[in-house]
Amino acid sequence: MTITEKIFGRASGKSVKAGDFVLADIDRAMTHDITGPLAVEGFYEIVKNQEEKKVWDPEKIVILFDHQVPADSLAAAQNHIMLRKFAKDQKIRHFYDVFEGVCHQVMPEKGHVEPGMLVVGSDSHTCAYGALGAFATGIGSTDMAAAFALGKLWFKVPETIRFEVNGRLDDRVSSKDVILKLIGDVGADGARYKACEYAGEVIESLDISQRMTISNMAIEMGGKAGIVEPDKKTEEYVKARVKGYKLDKNMKSDEGAKYADVREYDLSEMPPQVACPHNVDNVVDISEVEGKKIDQVFLGSCTNGRFEDLKIAAEIMGSKPVARGVRMIVIPASRTEYMKALRAGLIDQFMTAGAMVENPCCGPCMGGSFGLLGPGEVGLSTSNRNFKGRQGSADAFVYLSSPATAAASAIKGKITDPRSV
Amino acid sequence: MTITEKIFGRASGKSVKAGDFVLADIDRAMTHDITGPLAVEGFYEIVKNQEEKKVWDPEKIVILFDHQVPADSLAAAQNHIMLRKFAKDQKIRHFYDVFEGVCHQVMPEKGHVEPGMLVVGSDSHTCAYGALGAFATGIGSTDMAAAFALGKLWFKVPETIRFEVNGRLDDRVSSKDVILKLIGDVGADGARYKACEYAGEVIESLDISQRMTISNMAIEMGGKAGIVEPDKKTEEYVKARVKGYKLDKNMKSDEGAKYADVREYDLSEMPPQVACPHNVDNVVDISEVEGKKIDQVFLGSCTNGRFEDLKIAAEIMGSKPVARGVRMIVIPASRTEYMKALRAGLIDQFMTAGAMVENPCCGPCMGGSFGLLGPGEVGLSTSNRNFKGRQGSADAFVYLSSPATAAASAIKGKITDPRSV
Repeated sequence: MTITEKIFGRASGKSVKAGDFVLADIDRAMTHDITGPLAVEGFYEIVKNQEEKKVWDPEKIVILFDHQVPADSLAAAQNHIMLRKFAKDQKIRHFYDVFEGVCHQVMPEKGHVEPGMLVVGSDSHTCAYGALGAFATGIGSTDMAAAFALGKLWFKVPETIRFEVNGRLDDRVSSKDVILKLIGDVGADGARYKACEYAGEVIESLDISQRMTISNMAIEMGGKAGIVEPDKKTEEYVKARVKGYKLDKNMKSDEGAKYADVREYDLSEMPPQVACPHNVDNVVDISEVEGKKIDQVFLGSCTNGRFEDLKIAAEIMGSKPVARGVRMIVIPASRTEYMKALRAGLIDQFMTAGAMVENPCCGPCMGGSFGLLGPGEVGLSTSNRNFKGRQGSADAFVYLSSPATAAASAIKGKITDPRSV
Repeated sequence: MTITEKIFGRASGKSVKAGDFVLADIDRAMTHDITGPLAVEGFYEIVKNQEEKKVWDPEKIVILFDHQVPADSLAAAQNHIMLRKFAKDQKIRHFYDVFEGVCHQVMPEKGHVEPGMLVVGSDSHTCAYGALGAFATGIGSTDMAAAFALGKLWFKVPETIRFEVNGRLDDRVSSKDVILKLIGDVGADGARYKACEYAGEVIESLDISQRMTISNMAIEMGGKAGIVEPDKKTEEYVKARVKGYKLDKNMKSDEGAKYADVREYDLSEMPPQVACPHNVDNVVDISEVEGKKIDQVFLGSCTNGRFEDLKIAAEIMGSKPVARGVRMIVIPASRTEYMKALRAGLIDQFMTAGAMVENPCCGPCMGGSFGLLGPGEVGLSTSNRNFKGRQGSADAFVYLSSPATAAASAIKGKITDPRSV
């Protein structure tokens, strides 16, 4: 069995295989300030004829504000008020208001995710928690409404594509380059409704922060989930956050598990990768876009806004300022990551270099009200999507890269190979 | 003569008295990302038939981005692009992009304001620079267009109201309480088209940061300017920023100058003051509003976002967290002030307390896209305006206070006398 089949087996109380339809128990349901209000409305619609209008289990629901924080509009302020009331009325303790950070960072960081769990979130990058060996997937707000009411959802157990990633990454080549490579290889729909399973020497060598990056972007190849088998590193990470947690050594794919596809890579020679406008799978070696002038750099997001990401960026920038004419926006993914960066002197370093450092939030990633690009402008971003108009004008251009590439490019004012600075 | 008459005399090249109409030379013209675009359009309209479409003096124009930074909308991104091009085309060197801070902080901080200058800005709180003994006043974008083209504007030389503020302020009572007191006393139109001149023991005792607060809010009683006569402190502040600057000892009101009114105060016993919804002149002693529950605290703005403001707030908060249910937003007024706060450990302290710390910008003050209040919510703000709808919903309530009161209230979750914590 694959780890995915094992997780769905446990969650549905029977032995299952890929392709089966199952009604599965949800271990955690996450929602945020953008998709939450519709889920809450849907929930109250479902339970309107019940005497007790209660969620199935307030301990298993997590609500976080991150997309529009602090409230960027009257609508956002009203959404926040509504969700605060919902959390209070329903006694949902795991509620993180405007100051805590991006949902996909806060969820694992606060111990809401464990290996083997079935986690749903009303956000497409919920697959990020696969980094801890959970089956985590994004669902719509109306599905979330049903999860709030019943604690169960129907799933078709996905087939799995196993990515065997071997070799040894070059210095300044990171998991972001790996996942961009895989996405470019299989294409935006190459893993549609499949569980992506990441394994091999490279994956084993990655710390949890870097694993989160590759799991986060499984959806960018259509993946339903992006799972790294839990190991010692996972156990340590979760143990530090969940009292009494002990790793189930069986929580991994068996030898001989059946895969839809097994793709093997040796990435020892791989240069940094860049996704070009306007699709995430439009991926090239950095040499093909080196020298491209940029107007804005965004270092942050659930994909690459952790301390480790900020640290490599700071190392590369050294004492060099952000290039004239470039705006650099740095947003740590959570308060915890911010504090680590602050105490390591990184906030000082970024501000001194001329970057803007903002309070943890989704920032420019979603093009809401934070650092939009104007017509004709070029942005380089460590986030996960570069669709037309995603970060502002439909006539702007967004490139995606690793934090290392973003940092090297920020000080040079053009897309730059981080190995060259 | 009053200092105002002296400044207009110099700027118009003749002896003038209050009530005279003069065509005066502009020493500095400041514009920002909200009002700048209209000024630029107006400028090009004025010069459209000229061969050389040049501003009168690029060295005397200062452009800053602060209201919508980083760009909070496509319109903002386009405004930024337009103003960057204007600055480049017109060779305006004193151009501060998205990362520098709030105009009224950056102008004096970067040495663009000197005692005795005539400064115009297309922002109502331009009067802030009166703290350095300049006559500084807000003008509309179309007047700014004329200033860009000609370097001169017509003025009626204002009469002056002199505020003689004596006594010794209580601990934790600051210049914000003083100016709220004065505004409450004379009313929102009590100084209409008058120069407000602040003098007396209290004013002399204030540092430049605190003087900026009282000058900043002259417009809230209708004042055309809010001037503190330059002294040793002014000289030191300007000397540190303007090479070779030397104070003109004559740059103050003469004994026997003619005033429209002289108002005398002894504020030794004055408690902290609070402006209640929905007008700045709706001012009460703090005892009248103590205990009022609050949802949000904003510590920042051109009025009270300096290091000194953050420092007193941090001292009062100590190691106490922001009260449960309260959002606290801290925004240093400029990069320079941010760095001072950062290196003094204040950013760490605010973040640890559960506040959000944002990159320098106008923030919630103007209710654009940053920390809006929802219907029924109550905000306490160190900024300068509390009009209905100013910080979000027209059904929200904004109270104005000093940083000390804001800090005490943030940790208590309700309006609190800073002397009681």
